[in-house]
Amino acid sequence: MTEPNTGRQRLYIQEVAPRDGFQNEKQFIETQDKIAFINQLSGSGFAKIEATSFTSPKAIPALRDAEIVMHEIQRSPDVVYTVLVPNVRGAQRALECKVDEINLVMSVSETHNRANLRMTREQSFEQLSDVVSAVRGSRVAVNVSLSTVFGCPMEGDINAFEVFELVGRFAALGVDGVTLCDTTGMAYPTQVEKIGREVRRLFPGLTTTMHFHNTRGMALANTLAAIEAGIDRFDASLGGLGGCPYAPGASGNVCTEDLVHMLELMGYDTGVDLPGILGVSATLPGLVGHDIPSQILKAGPRLTLHPAPDFGG
Amino acid sequence: MTEPNTGRQRLYIQEVAPRDGFQNEKQFIETQDKIAFINQLSGSGFAKIEATSFTSPKAIPALRDAEIVMHEIQRSPDVVYTVLVPNVRGAQRALECKVDEINLVMSVSETHNRANLRMTREQSFEQLSDVVSAVRGSRVAVNVSLSTVFGCPMEGDINAFEVFELVGRFAALGVDGVTLCDTTGMAYPTQVEKIGREVRRLFPGLTTTMHFHNTRGMALANTLAAIEAGIDRFDASLGGLGGCPYAPGASGNVCTEDLVHMLELMGYDTGVDLPGILGVSATLPGLVGHDIPSQILKAGPRLTLHPAPDFGG
Repeated sequence: MTEPNTGRQRLYIQEVAPRDGFQNEKQFIETQDKIAFINQLSGSGFAKIEATSFTSPKAIPALRDAEIVMHEIQRSPDVVYTVLVPNVRGAQRALECKVDEINLVMSVSETHNRANLRMTREQSFEQLSDVVSAVRGSRVAVNVSLSTVFGCPMEGDINAFEVFELVGRFAALGVDGVTLCDTTGMAYPTQVEKIGREVRRLFPGLTTTMHFHNTRGMALANTLAAIEAGIDRFDASLGGLGGCPYAPGASGNVCTEDLVHMLELMGYDTGVDLPGILGVSATLPGLVGHDIPSQILKAGPRLTLHPAPDFGG
Repeated sequence: MTEPNTGRQRLYIQEVAPRDGFQNEKQFIETQDKIAFINQLSGSGFAKIEATSFTSPKAIPALRDAEIVMHEIQRSPDVVYTVLVPNVRGAQRALECKVDEINLVMSVSETHNRANLRMTREQSFEQLSDVVSAVRGSRVAVNVSLSTVFGCPMEGDINAFEVFELVGRFAALGVDGVTLCDTTGMAYPTQVEKIGREVRRLFPGLTTTMHFHNTRGMALANTLAAIEAGIDRFDASLGGLGGCPYAPGASGNVCTEDLVHMLELMGYDTGVDLPGILGVSATLPGLVGHDIPSQILKAGPRLTLHPAPDFGG
């Protein structure tokens, strides 16, 4: 991947709407619509796109077309195409589709892991260890997304040492990257900076991503704190797709265009084509059948000007 | 005003919903409801409450009950009660009501000033100078709120030197404080930090407040940047009341409970009783007749816990 040298600090934006967003939609998104959507994102400057999930079609019918999607999208050589994989069977399906990366997920919180994955953390870790073994030898990268890093909606605060220990166990397995997920919007800036800095210090060899939710309005503030801690990779979801199951009406995933808009104004080079993704985001309400929590789609970028009223001379 | 020494950095939150919020509501808020609302806020730890506006009842019928409100609220000695005043007539009315502070407003942008106030900036400055003269000799403080400091929705970028020059002209008149207003949510963190730092450096004798809008999702991020610049006073509106006239559906004023929630988590002492104001905010949809953009009201504070599902043994 060649990058123009702009003299600005590079940040990497990873688009998760095709998986994390569409998975949460009640209305099935037609396969060809998914493919067209991902193709548009592929030309928009994202470092990574989470394209789909190789879970059981019964468990997640919204993404039952994972193979077709992965085979039919037009891939850009500049984009890492990652997919969610829950187990060895999913990994095999993903490998057959020649994905660039598989993304594993489990929770730091025992209660949330059992609620979300119907397994204890130890069972999850064993299952994901098997996936890492199965993928070893392929050229496919492995990332682990850890849920509830900044708090659990059922347990409350999470001991940061449990986060570091779990990251360490995956690092020992040889995974390439870790994503620290603020699953229900409990992260706050000083906490993000502390945990981000410590994960970078303890595991300098891991590619670290932050995955923020805007449930309590803090996603952009948390992003600033993460950048202070040296983090340069961020998950985001176009239109803010992907809600919060615990708070009807509250925001979920941080909105890609809101994130990119702020970072570019601050002088960071996100690589993302903001006008381009705003055009794609504008198609989302039609695709998903409801309003989306994008602020920039509603208000326009900062320098969207409005006509002055007639002052009457 | 006595303050407990908590060892935490003190920040001052100034509630503007009774003026900036209610003024923008189509439905008239009953006078007794306004009074009860302000009384609840008075016991909630705000440093300042913008209670009403002494404008012409014809121009702003929503606040035509300014005198009654100011006379009937139960004032707390810990709160500065400020009111918006457009001219000498308004100042006289405000002084008769024994307000603690009058708040003047004009725009840094010529086009916005003409659109909003139907005057040139020079005409506004003259008119406000007369107000400052009229108030001189009383014990009432004077604050000036400058609109469009961080950008104008009609002109675009604003030259920061025009901001500093206008602040300087008011400082020369002897005003006590200045509020830098991000009228339509165009401020971004690096800009906020630069302008905030410079205003503090140039005018150390002025009490400086930041007034952010969340129109483009950046209000909390901008707050962090302002704190970096040494700013410790923030306007906010309960429930996020007070919309953006240029972007239907977009957020307006930063939401008080979202701001306080973040700052308290970060270890700042805002003085504000978060559970208390959440109770008041919960009454707002009934009062104004529509949903409000508060995130914390929807999602609950960070440690609002949810029951774990039954794992079935």
